[in-house]
Amino acid sequence: MNTIIYLDNASTTPTDKRVIKKMLPFFSENFANPATKWTSSLSKLVDEEVEQARLNIAKLLGADPDEIFFTSGGTESDNTALKGIAFKHHDRGNEIISIPIEHEAVLKSLETLEGFGFKIKFARVDSKGFVDPEEIKRLITKKTILVSIMHANNEIGTIEPIEEIGKICRERDIYFHTDAVQTVGHIPINVKSFNVDLLSLSAHKFYGPKGVGAIYVRKGVKVKPFMDGGGQEKGIRSGTLNTTGIIGLGEAARLASEEMEQTESDVKKMRDLLWDKIQKQIPKVYLNGAEIDSRLSNNLNIIIKGIRNEPLLVALNERGVIAGGGSACAAGSKYPSHVLKSIGVKDNDIFGALRITIGKFNKIEYVDYVVQSLNEIVNSLRDLSPFWEGE
Amino acid sequence: MNTIIYLDNASTTPTDKRVIKKMLPFFSENFANPATKWTSSLSKLVDEEVEQARLNIAKLLGADPDEIFFTSGGTESDNTALKGIAFKHHDRGNEIISIPIEHEAVLKSLETLEGFGFKIKFARVDSKGFVDPEEIKRLITKKTILVSIMHANNEIGTIEPIEEIGKICRERDIYFHTDAVQTVGHIPINVKSFNVDLLSLSAHKFYGPKGVGAIYVRKGVKVKPFMDGGGQEKGIRSGTLNTTGIIGLGEAARLASEEMEQTESDVKKMRDLLWDKIQKQIPKVYLNGAEIDSRLSNNLNIIIKGIRNEPLLVALNERGVIAGGGSACAAGSKYPSHVLKSIGVKDNDIFGALRITIGKFNKIEYVDYVVQSLNEIVNSLRDLSPFWEGE
Repeated sequence: MNTIIYLDNASTTPTDKRVIKKMLPFFSENFANPATKWTSSLSKLVDEEVEQARLNIAKLLGADPDEIFFTSGGTESDNTALKGIAFKHHDRGNEIISIPIEHEAVLKSLETLEGFGFKIKFARVDSKGFVDPEEIKRLITKKTILVSIMHANNEIGTIEPIEEIGKICRERDIYFHTDAVQTVGHIPINVKSFNVDLLSLSAHKFYGPKGVGAIYVRKGVKVKPFMDGGGQEKGIRSGTLNTTGIIGLGEAARLASEEMEQTESDVKKMRDLLWDKIQKQIPKVYLNGAEIDSRLSNNLNIIIKGIRNEPLLVALNERGVIAGGGSACAAGSKYPSHVLKSIGVKDNDIFGALRITIGKFNKIEYVDYVVQSLNEIVNSLRDLSPFWEGE
Repeated sequence: MNTIIYLDNASTTPTDKRVIKKMLPFFSENFANPATKWTSSLSKLVDEEVEQARLNIAKLLGADPDEIFFTSGGTESDNTALKGIAFKHHDRGNEIISIPIEHEAVLKSLETLEGFGFKIKFARVDSKGFVDPEEIKRLITKKTILVSIMHANNEIGTIEPIEEIGKICRERDIYFHTDAVQTVGHIPINVKSFNVDLLSLSAHKFYGPKGVGAIYVRKGVKVKPFMDGGGQEKGIRSGTLNTTGIIGLGEAARLASEEMEQTESDVKKMRDLLWDKIQKQIPKVYLNGAEIDSRLSNNLNIIIKGIRNEPLLVALNERGVIAGGGSACAAGSKYPSHVLKSIGVKDNDIFGALRITIGKFNKIEYVDYVVQSLNEIVNSLRDLSPFWEGE
């Protein structure tokens, strides 16, 4: 089979061709720097498209355009949110609450803040990856300035109870950030009903280009700029605007607004069929994280007993099927996934975790081929495995 | 005239069409995340191109590929260099030396560091924008950990004596960073003969795409990561790699290595002709910064006595000529250029500063049209100006 069946869409997605088409004229024709819009018509033209992109994202999030600031991606947005709030509001307190299954962009930023004297408190998550809003409530003290809880987990797809947590934070006048990198463009988001103050998103997770993202900062919320410089983006994010990337992100947002419902329904259908067939054909396979219907509809994260995921992924790749182990950002790491560890999966099982994440360009016709390949590979790996004791 | 004559190439440049061609397959065909190269052939393929880009940049700088780290641009590289060294080596001392005509990405990062207890010392620059290495030497104390001096100034094109300063720093075991955003791809650079430990560059200043840059970090030099997260780029810069941007940057570097000499000779010829004709046709015009032959060959920064640059730029734009006032990053600002102020230009004159920066796509045939347009506009503005007292 020559076709590549790409089932690692939580890691990154191909850029939609309509997005590329929209971006193309801004590389070498309408290439000007929007900063000089007051004196250059070429810059003015680019600026108008940048503002249209901002509007498209605002619409997708139920925000106002002037609450959207462009960044280089989800990681930068997370850094901006956490460090921006912490360093701006440290006089109000030094405690930050989060959960252990956050993306590394959040966890490592918190680690840095710890080095600057902030105290990080982690709320437990249950075996499905859910945090209990009541526990957040219990951890809050007078010194708490920020709560950061991801919208949905990148490895296991668990969708956290953001609205309830948002309400708790808002009532107590505590800033609330959510890393929505896995959900923006995939499921409906409304920053107002979520009661979030800051939200991170990344273009390449929903068919936009890599190297661009945005952060929502609620009107009136002050952050210390993370990226210092020329004062672009109202001083919140300096650096020449990545106009092509931003315009691509805007187009991806527009397409998501229009097509999300249909896309996600197709994606869910394929994911469900895949899971159904895997369960029927391969023995001793277990779902990690939330029940199949209360997780992101593109996500399947499973333990295949008795095998390691590296040879599995390599063998799948040889058959044209690309899937993932854990987070792509931690790929090649010798450490077991911190997410699976946090929900209580044993180390030996973690190394056998397989993440399959469906995207809108996947074809449901390939499900049988994928399951058959998986089955054959699992059988041969189990035959060789010292960890496999049979059914 | 329908053609746009773009003379603001220090602000940004159009992406070379060969660069776009190189990038295109990496948006939606070879789109995978290089982080998963161990298990995915699609990722491996992208990773190889990313490493080729790294090699191309290393070659352009006389560096080793493993000393090059990709960022979102010059601003991020500057932030990474300054904050990375300061927060990593604060136990060795808290003093940093720089000059007042640095780009805002450096100045504002230093301001942030000042808030964290670092002491910033500025060496004076002379009326042409040059810093005297002897003054750097005098400012150095046992507490000095970092010197940051730009390679060439973005407004006036003055090229600083980097090699001498590098030597002074290396002898004293003090880290030395240079912001080379205006010079990489334009004039020869060798990080070894420059004795620099860190160097910032940006793709869109030399016909690469916006939203991507790199930082050179000399082998063995430790920095605290600025962008925290998944640990990409050996932990120095987290975040999913902007593969299309990086591959574009690599291609721009390759083209620059091959064509720089010819390009810069053409650019200089056009700049010199322009300046010659302006001087002959327009009275009371003065050069800001270094002599015409000891500045960047693409740069012309002039004071046109008796006028303000905003109406001048608007009128030029109406005739299809796009030029700049000061730095694009500070465009629209009500404050006079900090660069021109630092070299002693009077406020009234600063507001009349015109920056013309030539690029490789400019055509020398248009020089007469540009000078004629400028002359006519200057005459009509001077007729109306309360500041103009005649020759």
